[in-house]
Amino acid sequence: MIGEGANEGVLARLAALEARVRELEDHAAICQLIARYGPAVDGMRRAALRAMWTPHGTYETEHHVFRGADEVGAIVDDPMHLGFVEPGCAHVMSHPVVTLQGDTAVATNYSRVYQRHGTTWAVVRAAANRWELVRASDGGWRVERRVNRLLNGSELARSLLANGLEANA
Amino acid sequence: MIGEGANEGVLARLAALEARVRELEDHAAICQLIARYGPAVDGMRRAALRAMWTPHGTYETEHHVFRGADEVGAIVDDPMHLGFVEPGCAHVMSHPVVTLQGDTAVATNYSRVYQRHGTTWAVVRAAANRWELVRASDGGWRVERRVNRLLNGSELARSLLANGLEANA
Amino acid sequence: MIGEGANEGVLARLAALEARVRELEDHAAICQLIARYGPAVDGMRRAALRAMWTPHGTYETEHHVFRGADEVGAIVDDPMHLGFVEPGCAHVMSHPVVTLQGDTAVATNYSRVYQRHGTTWAVVRAAANRWELVRASDGGWRVERRVNRLLNGSELARSLLANGLEANA
Repeated sequence: MIGEGANEGVLARLAALEARVRELEDHAAICQLIARYGPAVDGMRRAALRAMWTPHGTYETEHHVFRGADEVGAIVDDPMHLGFVEPGCAHVMSHPVVTLQGDTAVATNYSRVYQRHGTTWAVVRAAANRWELVRASDGGWRVERRVNRLLNGSELARSLLANGLEANA
Repeated sequence: MIGEGANEGVLARLAALEARVRELEDHAAICQLIARYGPAVDGMRRAALRAMWTPHGTYETEHHVFRGADEVGAIVDDPMHLGFVEPGCAHVMSHPVVTLQGDTAVATNYSRVYQRHGTTWAVVRAAANRWELVRASDGGWRVERRVNRLLNGSELARSLLANGLEANA
Repeated sequence: MIGEGANEGVLARLAALEARVRELEDHAAICQLIARYGPAVDGMRRAALRAMWTPHGTYETEHHVFRGADEVGAIVDDPMHLGFVEPGCAHVMSHPVVTLQGDTAVATNYSRVYQRHGTTWAVVRAAANRWELVRASDGGWRVERRVNRLLNGSELARSLLANGLEANA
């Protein structure tokens, strides 16, 4: 038979493991969420794209601010987007740097849009991204805000990348 | 001393953690398996490439269907492949969207082949990939089927990407 | 009340889980470390870049060997680096193949440097990377040695990729 003390040790180790496993699951879930963006836009799936964002979440590029999950989901029918997708295109995300803070997180990564021109694909956009994420009431992670800055030498893109490093430097 | 009830609680929490950790390990193992493809083909390692597939697994491109791990492994000596590798080339995988279902899984991602032309590298293939994976008897994950569809605007590639989102939408 | 034997079973399962969770955390931490490289150099953050390396760690390219974290951190002010960053540039890492061995690890991946030329980005470097990593006294992972080999068809790059597959083949 074991004493009370030994059991307390077991309970503390269980609780510590549960917290660590939850953090690993959150990390993996956030990486998976971001990995879904490309297949959603290139696969023309409005519902899957919309489901990535919170109802009032935003997506800011230098062209436009999309306000709310409905506007983001509508990207798949946008004439500019169709112009990318029709010849053949890939929106590819790099593996993000992620900082978790309980029920919110910030992820920073690169995105590139490859567009077919004949027998090769040109990189027609290379951008820095900041993803502000929240844990939704169903336990899943959603995008509250995505900021996308073209890597054209501007300080905007540079500071966005740098800021992503601060939290866990 | 602790009661039977408390111990049952501990055992239930342990079992839940073991299942969650196994899922995280499976997820990481699948991402690692897919990450090995590029180094295997660009590093010309027939055995490592063959070991990724099940004995009867397939790899389908628009050019050809490779049937079985031996045929897949032989890619490293294929004249078309050598034509890619000799000037300098990189087969790069994006981080996949993964859906685990016990001992099988589906992963969806982008692949790009960069080939050197003088002082820059051209993207000579950008494709969507569907990986159907199985847990082998040794516990490791293997490719049962890989489908690779060129991102040339075709509905084939678009639906392959979209289908990868369905299982965990 | 539970017997001594049952408790030993619980302790063994806890210890096994702790080891597995630590391995998952190490794996994630190493992937995060490598993901930080791009934002550090493109975001011009000397301190964040320096903090990735051990004090005497090295970074070898075909141009130069950077010796020690201070020299690596100084890359952000190097005229050659500034020439990449000023027009707009992205240093993007692929997800690495990682082999953990206790307090050391080897990671193998691809890096690409995208540089803006007008309205598109050219891939001006595509390289194979070997990262030799160590767990530091603060528990964090650091780069002890990074070897970067241009994918120009040379046997150097090819064997670097192939060697990354051996440890967990």
